[in-house]
Amino acid sequence: MNGAESLVRTLLNGDVNVCFANPGTSEMHFVSALDRVEGVRCILGLFEGVVTGAADGYYRMAGKPAATLLHLGPGLGNGLANLHNAKKARSGMVNIVGEHASYHIKHDAPLTADIEGVARPMSDWVLTSRSAQDVAADGAKAIEAARTAPGQIATLILPADTAWSEAGGPATVNAPAPRTRVERSAIDAGARALRSGRPAAILLGGAALRGKALEHAASIAAKCGCQLLCEYNNARMERGVGRAVVKQLPFVVDAALAMLKDVQELVLVGAKSPVSFFAYPGKPSVLVPEGCTVTKVAGAEADLEQALEALADALGARNTAPLLNQRAYDGALPTGAITLDGLGALFNTLIPDNAVVIDEAVTSGRAFTGATLGARPHDWLNIMGGSIGWGLAAAMGAAIAAPDRKVIAFEGDGSAQYTLQALWTMARENLDVTVVIFANRAYKILLGELTNVGAAAPGANARSMLTLDRPDLDWVALAKGYGVEAGRAATLDELAVQFRRGLAVPGPYLVEVVM
Amino acid sequence: MNGAESLVRTLLNGDVNVCFANPGTSEMHFVSALDRVEGVRCILGLFEGVVTGAADGYYRMAGKPAATLLHLGPGLGNGLANLHNAKKARSGMVNIVGEHASYHIKHDAPLTADIEGVARPMSDWVLTSRSAQDVAADGAKAIEAARTAPGQIATLILPADTAWSEAGGPATVNAPAPRTRVERSAIDAGARALRSGRPAAILLGGAALRGKALEHAASIAAKCGCQLLCEYNNARMERGVGRAVVKQLPFVVDAALAMLKDVQELVLVGAKSPVSFFAYPGKPSVLVPEGCTVTKVAGAEADLEQALEALADALGARNTAPLLNQRAYDGALPTGAITLDGLGALFNTLIPDNAVVIDEAVTSGRAFTGATLGARPHDWLNIMGGSIGWGLAAAMGAAIAAPDRKVIAFEGDGSAQYTLQALWTMARENLDVTVVIFANRAYKILLGELTNVGAAAPGANARSMLTLDRPDLDWVALAKGYGVEAGRAATLDELAVQFRRGLAVPGPYLVEVVM
Repeated sequence: MNGAESLVRTLLNGDVNVCFANPGTSEMHFVSALDRVEGVRCILGLFEGVVTGAADGYYRMAGKPAATLLHLGPGLGNGLANLHNAKKARSGMVNIVGEHASYHIKHDAPLTADIEGVARPMSDWVLTSRSAQDVAADGAKAIEAARTAPGQIATLILPADTAWSEAGGPATVNAPAPRTRVERSAIDAGARALRSGRPAAILLGGAALRGKALEHAASIAAKCGCQLLCEYNNARMERGVGRAVVKQLPFVVDAALAMLKDVQELVLVGAKSPVSFFAYPGKPSVLVPEGCTVTKVAGAEADLEQALEALADALGARNTAPLLNQRAYDGALPTGAITLDGLGALFNTLIPDNAVVIDEAVTSGRAFTGATLGARPHDWLNIMGGSIGWGLAAAMGAAIAAPDRKVIAFEGDGSAQYTLQALWTMARENLDVTVVIFANRAYKILLGELTNVGAAAPGANARSMLTLDRPDLDWVALAKGYGVEAGRAATLDELAVQFRRGLAVPGPYLVEVVM
Repeated sequence: MNGAESLVRTLLNGDVNVCFANPGTSEMHFVSALDRVEGVRCILGLFEGVVTGAADGYYRMAGKPAATLLHLGPGLGNGLANLHNAKKARSGMVNIVGEHASYHIKHDAPLTADIEGVARPMSDWVLTSRSAQDVAADGAKAIEAARTAPGQIATLILPADTAWSEAGGPATVNAPAPRTRVERSAIDAGARALRSGRPAAILLGGAALRGKALEHAASIAAKCGCQLLCEYNNARMERGVGRAVVKQLPFVVDAALAMLKDVQELVLVGAKSPVSFFAYPGKPSVLVPEGCTVTKVAGAEADLEQALEALADALGARNTAPLLNQRAYDGALPTGAITLDGLGALFNTLIPDNAVVIDEAVTSGRAFTGATLGARPHDWLNIMGGSIGWGLAAAMGAAIAAPDRKVIAFEGDGSAQYTLQALWTMARENLDVTVVIFANRAYKILLGELTNVGAAAPGANARSMLTLDRPDLDWVALAKGYGVEAGRAATLDELAVQFRRGLAVPGPYLVEVVM
């Protein structure tokens, strides 16, 4: 067997059986090996940002890495923004990047580039295979790196001759190490902070926002009378009726400062100490108020369920009834003009049970997501690295990982443009995704940011760079271009019809909401 | 004035007056400065690959750099593939990449990344400004780097506080140094090779393919009875009736080897010694036949007109009549089913005088471009780095640089998908571009490459990764989505109607050719 086949068999040994791909000539032997060896589902993206974004969405829902297949330095470059988002989400993935045959690199052919250099800024682990004999073992190391909790970006560079030359067999892949248990001293420190009598808050991140971990956190908060907070963005959070009430830190610095201003004990479980998204003249980067003690109980890599269970035990909170979101979706649907309140009420009513919500709605989303906490239980996934162009791709990957769940992608029109090619893959794979585009026809967040950073009101050049009109994007036509059924909504009544239609269709559907 | 304004004024001092942009929060002060200072035309791209590809096309036609404006590491990442293409084209550009305020970087906010690390693989010059006082001088250095012959990618990273803090005035920008003159010894070596009596060829690249340089080369070839060749891809080449007959090296290794097999003296003027695009098992990387002497007269950075004039003088070829392409567009238009021969004949007849042709037609283009040498005089621009997704963006930039010329973009359907957002900017700026999409609904070149690398015939997984059907892309709908008028052609007759319509419209028009 050649190196490529030894790698495919190693991927299967490591339970990596989905490959999001956009290959080229240097990857043809790997493509051919994927043909010969059964068991890997190959899914084409028409652009590499779709591929890496899909692998991020996949990891968040499957809890295990997918492979990506990318073509040399520039193909990896195209995937870099969503690798950045995935890295910040602590998602694991195994990137397989083709390279020229090792003896060809010195000739500086057109596609020659410093692939390791491109990979490094957005990877946790990078390796170039030196020979066909090494490929399987290198692949095993890549999978092990990708599966290191909470997840890592592993990039394996595969010179074409290492793929086509004769290799040994596949390699065995070590099972993922269990998450590190949090030590008694850290638990005790957290307990002391929460028992101090000073105003306290627990800031949750990562896996603390799901399952038993979240339930323990809610009991602790109820027992101690402290706030339960989460970071502004979260990789995957359980929300909706019957789930813990967790307040999200706002994006806007002043609002975040206001939320935290009275907190004197901040306890971190899976979260980082909060900082502002951007710097603004005259405003602080650090959101923790002066005099507040920050206690880190556990980082994102730790066993957060164990940590929170131990913390609940230490505080005698195991049986304390938590504060849970209440059912709030039985009212009449809102009607009339599209408003942010109306959107919140509508989605609160219509998000179906067990939905996976991908949130890249930016300006519009920020305004209405808080109003959907009373919806049926669902998972909510945020863009983690701030590089817009993640949502459609992530929705595609989430739908591959969770084929029995309805995926809803809330998208800003500006954001959705970066990786709109994902619509085609949704159509090809008949993925059960309802895409809602909030078409405000501007980078509206930036019109606000222009003021936030203390710059002048927009003139002609700024307007030309911050608006998306002249011409308006026609999302219904774009969806049709990719074979995705679509409709437009200019009122809440139309949106209810369109959104329900999307939910009813067992495949992709796009709704353009004219804001 | 703040640092941002000092940079805008420095750009104008350096005759950089077009800015292709996709900004974010960290660039807002620069955006605001572009408002306050008149003279820079700001053009929004909905994706950063559009922005950098446009700057490449602009440089090739304007002969001077544009600026780009990109948002932090991931925004630069999205632009990387077309920076790679531009770097391989030796195009100059000044990338201005926003960064967090310097004091904010250590907090590892979501968008924090190693921007210099992302920039380096695809830049010739990288610098992060240290203070507002430095920004103007740093900008001048960036422009000087970008204008260094034949052109360089200069990336200036601008922390937000260097943009918003108080600065001195703008900096002066040194005029570009003249291209280096080629020394007598190199000219003499070239002359000796061409007078040797052994079968000889001149391989032209870069600026040797235009103007007086090309005329001299054609006279030399006629005088010496040698072949006149060009590289497989060329940044900008003058072609058509009345221009020198130059044979293009083929992409396919065996065909390139066959073209060169009898050459015993290869003289390089602005070109690199030829190597294969990819490595293939059992085939050579180097295309120069054994026993052939390679003589480098001048590199791409040199004054190629001076070199070829001197070489013509040395060979007594100044007044030798060159071999020129003959008029061949007066026949009847081909009709009936779409064939590659028919496409060649049709475009040979219809390409208008002084057109700028952007060629990213890959499989289809490779088969018909040779048949368009008898068309009216035109410039022909190839993708130089092999990273598809260049053409629509480059066409947009070329149209900005050459508003009085018709731009024609020949595009493969696979290639066009990577940066199709360029269509929107074409509509917004009413750019005079006729886009022709050759819709063979596959990465057809890769279906061939699968065989070329010695892999097996495609099975189910390979087909799923190499075809673009299920569903077919509807390019007419996609164009409509971006506000670009479009039509479809399934026969040569329909294509003649559609292509002429595109030429007649004084703005963008897209033709989908169903192959």
